Amino acid sequence: MSLVVQKYGGTSVGDVEKIKSVARRVVESKKRIDHVVVVVSALGKTTDELVGLASSISKSPPEREMDMLLSTGEQVSMALLAMALNELGQDAISMTGQQVEMLTDTSHTRAKIRHVGAERVIQELRKGRVVVVAGFQGVTTEGEITTLGRGGSDTTAVALAAALHADYCEIYTDVDGVFSADPRVVPEARKQKEVSYEEMMEMATTGARVLQSRSVEYARNYNVPLHVRSSFHDGEGTWVKSEDDIMEKAIISAVTHDFSEAKVTVIGVPDRPGVAASLFGALAEANVNVDMIIQNVSDHARTDISFTVSSDDLEKVRKVTGEIAEAVSAAGVDYDDDIAKISLIGAGMRTHPGIAAGMFQTLADHKVNIEMISTSPIKISCVVRRSDGATAVRTLHKHFGLQD
Amino acid sequence: MSLVVQKYGGTSVGDVEKIKSVARRVVESKKRIDHVVVVVSALGKTTDELVGLASSISKSPPEREMDMLLSTGEQVSMALLAMALNELGQDAISMTGQQVEMLTDTSHTRAKIRHVGAERVIQELRKGRVVVVAGFQGVTTEGEITTLGRGGSDTTAVALAAALHADYCEIYTDVDGVFSADPRVVPEARKQKEVSYEEMMEMATTGARVLQSRSVEYARNYNVPLHVRSSFHDGEGTWVKSEDDIMEKAIISAVTHDFSEAKVTVIGVPDRPGVAASLFGALAEANVNVDMIIQNVSDHARTDISFTVSSDDLEKVRKVTGEIAEAVSAAGVDYDDDIAKISLIGAGMRTHPGIAAGMFQTLADHKVNIEMISTSPIKISCVVRRSDGATAVRTLHKHFGLQD
Repeated sequence: MSLVVQKYGGTSVGDVEKIKSVARRVVESKKRIDHVVVVVSALGKTTDELVGLASSISKSPPEREMDMLLSTGEQVSMALLAMALNELGQDAISMTGQQVEMLTDTSHTRAKIRHVGAERVIQELRKGRVVVVAGFQGVTTEGEITTLGRGGSDTTAVALAAALHADYCEIYTDVDGVFSADPRVVPEARKQKEVSYEEMMEMATTGARVLQSRSVEYARNYNVPLHVRSSFHDGEGTWVKSEDDIMEKAIISAVTHDFSEAKVTVIGVPDRPGVAASLFGALAEANVNVDMIIQNVSDHARTDISFTVSSDDLEKVRKVTGEIAEAVSAAGVDYDDDIAKISLIGAGMRTHPGIAAGMFQTLADHKVNIEMISTSPIKISCVVRRSDGATAVRTLHKHFGLQD
Repeated sequence: MSLVVQKYGGTSVGDVEKIKSVARRVVESKKRIDHVVVVVSALGKTTDELVGLASSISKSPPEREMDMLLSTGEQVSMALLAMALNELGQDAISMTGQQVEMLTDTSHTRAKIRHVGAERVIQELRKGRVVVVAGFQGVTTEGEITTLGRGGSDTTAVALAAALHADYCEIYTDVDGVFSADPRVVPEARKQKEVSYEEMMEMATTGARVLQSRSVEYARNYNVPLHVRSSFHDGEGTWVKSEDDIMEKAIISAVTHDFSEAKVTVIGVPDRPGVAASLFGALAEANVNVDMIIQNVSDHARTDISFTVSSDDLEKVRKVTGEIAEAVSAAGVDYDDDIAKISLIGAGMRTHPGIAAGMFQTLADHKVNIEMISTSPIKISCVVRRSDGATAVRTLHKHFGLQD
């Protein structure tokens, strides 16, 4: 018996016509696949509209009430899709996070999945029904409604696929798959047939927006193959799977970029224990996600600490960093949101020495100055001037032979 | 300890500003009352919009999915009101029908309440919180979401008031209370201080739109005093309570009218057993609510059967009645939606003979012809030409001394 979980994002269910089109697609799938479970996001801009309503009432609404509010978006789209499926003669039933027993912890607005029951999903599938599940939402053991945070519907789909031992999980989206670079920057970028979970996670955290790293991590932990594909045509997309299952292993999979970060440098910090801890502790407390952190070698008992954050958080960061800098008698703080982070990702790096050198040389050849470097076993990230960003992506893409 | 349930309808929570204004009102109430539970309807036109979405997908969407869809409206308004209360410094928590254990039967879109647990409501009230409950929705023992049909939020409020042994239940609405007639037809109509449950139920079923008869019936069964009042000012409204608790008993409480009905007459029906049963059985099956039914005395083995229905149902009625009329070889069917139903309501009728005669004489004096008559112990309804409707209401209102 085949079982597949399909997830349709907000742009795929943007309006009534698109919902009908998704319904037709699901009906087609049901002809080939024994059991189909569909996870849906909220319609188009619904979530933004609800957030707008809330913020016109309170600057910091209780997170529990935000979850009550936001979870309605997916409930609307699941009901409409179930109606559209029944209208096509396909027996279908919608289910809330509570009904599929998507049990989470109690962290409202960013809950983590603890357990997926899915008993009732299985019962309904056995009746020949398509089960349409509200993405993004869960429930605590106390019956409180939670939401899973950004990209939560992907995580819902993967978690259900894992609980139901699905053959694979299809992520329908508005792009054709995972590319070797952003096609808007590199027109000759190629759609990858396969990438590993680890590569996909690095791509997600370095600027590729097609999947959230959390859902990929979940898929890796439960070994759920993902198929990222377009909701607008039938062409194959990109498979995200275990490295062991990938047939043609590329050395480099992608060049990614992130133009949305800012660099902060605390200058002349006294080189004594505890300074970095107090700075990054305060930033964490202010809910700021710090990406790269670099501390230069100490010189004359003083050092510089540089880090990158999302530009959106820069106001919060200014406040926190300014206070800490004063408290530890740093010489000053420099803020720079005119940067780009360019990353090279590939599982093959682990076995092919010289990739980093090739990257740095290529950038140098094109007069792109590197301001920060950070690496993982399968990733090298460089911070450069934002005006050099596109050049850096294009030349690296070419140098490493990623074009078709 | 005082405990009051307040219900705010769709026009009272029509937009963000109105929600803030309701929140201020609740905070004021909380200063006087120990425990306040608030029941809310969906924002303004939300329910209509959701129905519109559904009908653009399917002409007859599954009722279960309609409930999934429609129940989101109240979930949005309860979350926003809870946010607004917290913003004013009043600790508040919202709850779905499931969380307050509003257990219903399984009749989707028109579920009946079977039991109200309200355990968690009591726990939250004890913490000093205002509890904001989604009106209109319930849940089955299987965890399926249901809705209570038209006026369902009033019923939610009354059911909670009964379960919590509330002192009374306030129904906030866009009118000042219950009037002796519709002020748009009779400008000198007076706001009633008190009416009995029975009178209110008769008024609701004869055209007064301020409360649904079902919620009043529930209130009567559990002896929950209702206070119908304006959400726009602090003035007293109308109390709906047990007849025994009413201080100044009026003979006549109100003249109501209903201009939305149509009269159907099946002419020349063979006078044999089973004809009426098959006609009204078929109408019930088609989900048509029949109001008045009159059968004239049989003459020459043939009789006429007249009945009234909502004009909205006239298309359905034409189909069903036409078929039955043909099947029983009736002479024909006459449809007339140019009628008005005028009713006189008052508990005092039971003990004051001559009220009916006075009504008929008053109408005759003003040349208003009566086409159908139907009575209950505390109500007399007459069907007249629609063009005579306003005259009939005004003259009866004057004749029975209902003006101030």
